[in-house]
Amino acid sequence: MTQEMEIISVGNELLIGKVLNTNAEWLSKHATNLGITVKRVTVVPDDVDESAPVIRETLNRKPQFVVTTGGLGPTYDDKTLEIIAKAFRCKLAVNHAALEMVKKKYQTYASKKGRNYAELTPSRVKMATIPENSKPIPNPVGAAPAIQIDTNGTILIALPGVPREMEAIFEENVAPLLKSASRDNRFYEDSLYLDGIMESELAPLIEKVMQDNPGIYVKSHPKDAEKKPHLEIHFSLTLSDHETAQERIHKAVTQLTDLIKHVSSPSHFTKANKAN
Amino acid sequence: MTQEMEIISVGNELLIGKVLNTNAEWLSKHATNLGITVKRVTVVPDDVDESAPVIRETLNRKPQFVVTTGGLGPTYDDKTLEIIAKAFRCKLAVNHAALEMVKKKYQTYASKKGRNYAELTPSRVKMATIPENSKPIPNPVGAAPAIQIDTNGTILIALPGVPREMEAIFEENVAPLLKSASRDNRFYEDSLYLDGIMESELAPLIEKVMQDNPGIYVKSHPKDAEKKPHLEIHFSLTLSDHETAQERIHKAVTQLTDLIKHVSSPSHFTKANKAN
Repeated sequence: MTQEMEIISVGNELLIGKVLNTNAEWLSKHATNLGITVKRVTVVPDDVDESAPVIRETLNRKPQFVVTTGGLGPTYDDKTLEIIAKAFRCKLAVNHAALEMVKKKYQTYASKKGRNYAELTPSRVKMATIPENSKPIPNPVGAAPAIQIDTNGTILIALPGVPREMEAIFEENVAPLLKSASRDNRFYEDSLYLDGIMESELAPLIEKVMQDNPGIYVKSHPKDAEKKPHLEIHFSLTLSDHETAQERIHKAVTQLTDLIKHVSSPSHFTKANKAN
Repeated sequence: MTQEMEIISVGNELLIGKVLNTNAEWLSKHATNLGITVKRVTVVPDDVDESAPVIRETLNRKPQFVVTTGGLGPTYDDKTLEIIAKAFRCKLAVNHAALEMVKKKYQTYASKKGRNYAELTPSRVKMATIPENSKPIPNPVGAAPAIQIDTNGTILIALPGVPREMEAIFEENVAPLLKSASRDNRFYEDSLYLDGIMESELAPLIEKVMQDNPGIYVKSHPKDAEKKPHLEIHFSLTLSDHETAQERIHKAVTQLTDLIKHVSSPSHFTKANKAN
């Protein structure tokens, strides 16, 4: 059993298609590589009443981790802390440690600028006004602290939406938690690249390989329409033992390669067995 | 009241961070431009038991439209039709019209190739095996038909995951439905670009503009950390009257511009009032 994570991306800009959700992709990739299974990504608006129930439903599914991105900044539309507080039916309060983090940040900015950047305006205090059941996590890049809540076997972490800030806090504070939770589990993958063979021809062969290699997920990725087929066949497995994982993936790749050679010409292989 | 849509993206490749969810961005942008409000995007795995309940919960929220992407192809991991059938507690059956679509496609492929591409293998028949309560939509680009289900005031449409196929079917068959549902509602937007001013300084000004201009959504997009601030302030509105929408957006942009000039230097504006 792998540890499970859900990602909740908060932001109207995602729902109007103004911004591509690269944060969810980045987090999914990094969590997966650490042996965690990402079960669901949900994109919700900057709206407390709409989005608080989504947090609540997510917690009810009891994943080991919930990571939200976006909505921690100083402006009116940054509502994630309020959304989380409502989901937990708990209050928002100025957190002393968080306020110190914000204060320090603006003092640093002020020391480099000619103007009074150090003033703790209400918009800046807002970033330190966090759910009472949460603790702040320092943001090494930007002003808004992240937060963490430990509840009923789930760890919820709210990260900022600016990718550089989100990534820095993840690397420093979230990755170690995931690593320790997934123990030695890691994600292993390999790919076969094929040309001139149709997905529908391969389908029964892939199914046989999956049946013969339980635990290995084989997914075909058509790169274009069936008319001019170019396929990537992706093999993956999450396992704690490196050697066994490599062997099992290798066995599956070899079996599919042999099956394809039997029904078709070897010239279909464009790039074989890329090392992981 | 605008018409609402939810998007469900089906695919393990999204949850392992192997593929960026460009389909959800594309659909969100195109639906928004047609005056539809996208309320939620959910990314779910290629797993019938995990993902059928997500379809059911989505239908329970009664949006006017649900659009799924991915999982309509010929391989084992293409499970969206099965997921939808389970969500509706209905059976999958070979649909005559869908089978004709698939057959025709492979006959076309066969006429261009030296091999027997026309054979209706089980993997190909699978693409025409659709929920009994659905009707097939032709795919002008690839082999797998899309499907449509009309149920309790919600139209559910399942589109393929290959972007070129998804986009073609959307343009031909989904956009007209959305247009007719949203009547004359369209999305209007404008942006202000600012340099050297911090989001936290702008926050109270943006809040004032939102209070004075109900219906207009103003969202600040920090392009980097607060340390070296570069901001886009995005104004948007969905309305049926073109003139009124333009006027209202213009009024909000002008008000924010004036407010910023009062607290700061006009040199912050890097690109003003980009025409929509």
